Amino acid sequence: MAHSTMQNVSAIISTKWICPVRPLNHVLEDHSIVIDDHQIIDIIDTKKVDALYTTNQHYQLHHHIVTPGLINTHTHAAMNLFRGYADDQSLHTWLNESIWPLEKKWVTPDFVYDGTLIACAEMLKSGITTFNEMYFYPQSAAQAISQSGLRANIGLFVMEHPSNYANDADDYLIKGLEARDGWRDEKLITSSIAPHAPYTISNKTFEKILTYANQLNLTIHMHVHETAAEIEESIKEYQLRPIERLNQLGIISPQFMAVHAVHLNEHDLITLAKESASVVHCPSSNLKLGSGLANIDAMHQHHLNVCLGTDGSASNNKLDLLHEMQLASLIAKGLMQNPSIIDARNSLEMATINGAKALGLDDNIGSIEIGKFADITAFNIDSINTLPIYDPISHLVYALSRDAVSHVWINGALQYQEGFLQSIDLKECKDIALRWQLKLKQNI
Amino acid sequence: MAHSTMQNVSAIISTKWICPVRPLNHVLEDHSIVIDDHQIIDIIDTKKVDALYTTNQHYQLHHHIVTPGLINTHTHAAMNLFRGYADDQSLHTWLNESIWPLEKKWVTPDFVYDGTLIACAEMLKSGITTFNEMYFYPQSAAQAISQSGLRANIGLFVMEHPSNYANDADDYLIKGLEARDGWRDEKLITSSIAPHAPYTISNKTFEKILTYANQLNLTIHMHVHETAAEIEESIKEYQLRPIERLNQLGIISPQFMAVHAVHLNEHDLITLAKESASVVHCPSSNLKLGSGLANIDAMHQHHLNVCLGTDGSASNNKLDLLHEMQLASLIAKGLMQNPSIIDARNSLEMATINGAKALGLDDNIGSIEIGKFADITAFNIDSINTLPIYDPISHLVYALSRDAVSHVWINGALQYQEGFLQSIDLKECKDIALRWQLKLKQNI
Repeated sequence: MAHSTMQNVSAIISTKWICPVRPLNHVLEDHSIVIDDHQIIDIIDTKKVDALYTTNQHYQLHHHIVTPGLINTHTHAAMNLFRGYADDQSLHTWLNESIWPLEKKWVTPDFVYDGTLIACAEMLKSGITTFNEMYFYPQSAAQAISQSGLRANIGLFVMEHPSNYANDADDYLIKGLEARDGWRDEKLITSSIAPHAPYTISNKTFEKILTYANQLNLTIHMHVHETAAEIEESIKEYQLRPIERLNQLGIISPQFMAVHAVHLNEHDLITLAKESASVVHCPSSNLKLGSGLANIDAMHQHHLNVCLGTDGSASNNKLDLLHEMQLASLIAKGLMQNPSIIDARNSLEMATINGAKALGLDDNIGSIEIGKFADITAFNIDSINTLPIYDPISHLVYALSRDAVSHVWINGALQYQEGFLQSIDLKECKDIALRWQLKLKQNI
Repeated sequence: MAHSTMQNVSAIISTKWICPVRPLNHVLEDHSIVIDDHQIIDIIDTKKVDALYTTNQHYQLHHHIVTPGLINTHTHAAMNLFRGYADDQSLHTWLNESIWPLEKKWVTPDFVYDGTLIACAEMLKSGITTFNEMYFYPQSAAQAISQSGLRANIGLFVMEHPSNYANDADDYLIKGLEARDGWRDEKLITSSIAPHAPYTISNKTFEKILTYANQLNLTIHMHVHETAAEIEESIKEYQLRPIERLNQLGIISPQFMAVHAVHLNEHDLITLAKESASVVHCPSSNLKLGSGLANIDAMHQHHLNVCLGTDGSASNNKLDLLHEMQLASLIAKGLMQNPSIIDARNSLEMATINGAKALGLDDNIGSIEIGKFADITAFNIDSINTLPIYDPISHLVYALSRDAVSHVWINGALQYQEGFLQSIDLKECKDIALRWQLKLKQNI
């Protein structure tokens, strides 16, 4: 063997199982992922790796399952500071007496920076490498995200109502676009326009949103058809269901992410499928807020791109995408009384490649393939909670909990390893959380 | 302060929060649980404990929530060895082509001992202190349980069909009663008769079961109304729904545990409530096998005693009662589109005192009260995944995962502490699991 043919690379991950997501349903045993700089440059039999590559960072993960990094396609990260503040309340009480007054009293740039930072820490520990964000003060979220090492698509939040952050729809749009200028050089951050919901945005504002989205090539990230009530209200006001109204306005497109989409009729499904829009399924949040049970099986039958979101910690209460994967499969089976639908493979796709597709990033992330960025999560299954193991993909979805996450790489950099974060000080995060806890408790 | 008034005790647990379950909805802050021998003898303000008690075992759990030990009221522990062997299959394929052939080929006394031991290890790590068991070779399960230190109610399994274990209903009954003689001196083990299901047991056998249950004062633990199909079949064969048939036979009583009970009409609910029977809700299993969504809210409105079970690892795939608590609340809210029903307090009761009541053990366990046995679970919330915290009970159900379990006491003995089991060798358990994995993989 000629040494001259050896290539020195940034890192090699040798592992028991790789679930690369593409090709579909593939599982590789005793293979290695070769990373150079930000990219995956090879995936080969571990027996052959030492003959071809040298590295200072060779990870030996022989009790592990390795997957593409998980993609959380809907959250309000800063709401981690409200985690568990107001549970088991009716939606009306929750919004009017808890969340909105809390936000009015407490939400500032500091709140958003602090809350987003601790949410990033939680997401990293949960195997999430990319998230899709929607909240006030996006520039403060961007600061925390940039520090964390996570990849994110940040929403430029818009609604008609005033808040601490902005006065009216135009003000939200202007502030959002200014904020975006601040992170345009960040390689791991992309942007969307994030109108709150059809019932909080006028047709006139939707027209402006569409203009900006088209000019700047931004995705649109919005809550849609979360409750039955919002559909009734729309029919009263516009004589149209919200999705019909959005479609007439030209909002629904491959760049559109319909978050929740719990209540869809056949016509809604056809519209979303025809326009190649994505649905962001948030099962925990939909259940916890009593919104209902989204019919993912029907979406699959319409070949819709369905991805998964945790929603914010005020309505979940954890940023645990592995749990959402499990719930997505379980609820679909229970709802349709058919245990063979929405299998573990479907859930793994929803949490990875489908999320990448919704964000327009599927050429770069969402699967473990040569040429893609090295966004990778490793799960340690050497525990009595997870043995024996017969099928790694099924194990991921039905048997593992997020405490099995052992390593997380983003863009080729190791950001989490067995309890330690590379770019965030966990002790400082806990102090931040406790400081806000003390303040907010005065309100209870 | 006179030293002569000081009492020396086995252990003191001083903790941030105690959720004692009784009195209802109570939360104690900065209190201590005083344990002597097997019992809780005092619960007092931590500031006062040192003036009254001395001990060699003083646990300082100041970032912790402490609850009664969790009670898993339905499992087939040994099926841990089949965890993830056959997922995403139709119920017919799962039973006929996977589970039943597997059981015929592999289930022996050794299999049951090994599988039960690893399930006990998993349950201890998950904060479970008592479980309600149903499987073949109960004497082998009893050996593993006795070794583990867990409290259990072991079912004397009965059906008409032959298996490796027994030839017919009489044979199952005789073997079960003989097995029971073997564990009658075990202080932590009680017994039930566990007929498989109405559709696998004749009226004649039910009469014998009832006689034994009455004579020996045993609970009856059975799968009931799990699928819509079994109800239709019963109507065809007996012109009665299974619960009506069981009621006519005198089986339904305060000693009866109706496992699953997914499909109940108003008449079934009235019957179960009138007879003061218990329902064992197994949400993960019901969803995963496509059985459907049990209506816990309707059961609550009928004042039924509802408790929680994980079912076996072949249909879940984890023995994680904290997860079942969360699912029970979430699914009820989603199903009824009402976020205020089946709140965190209800789920905590289902997983503790209601389980104790179903097993006839509520005078001894199921709450943290003076005079009860010290079956106690502690959860560490000092993690960025679980901060901030405003309401410990809500946090338990919605924010914590089982990896937060830090300590487990059963009958006054510390059986689990931060990764280490007192009575089971975890390394040996992993070897056992891997040995069976190798054997069973030959079958795939």
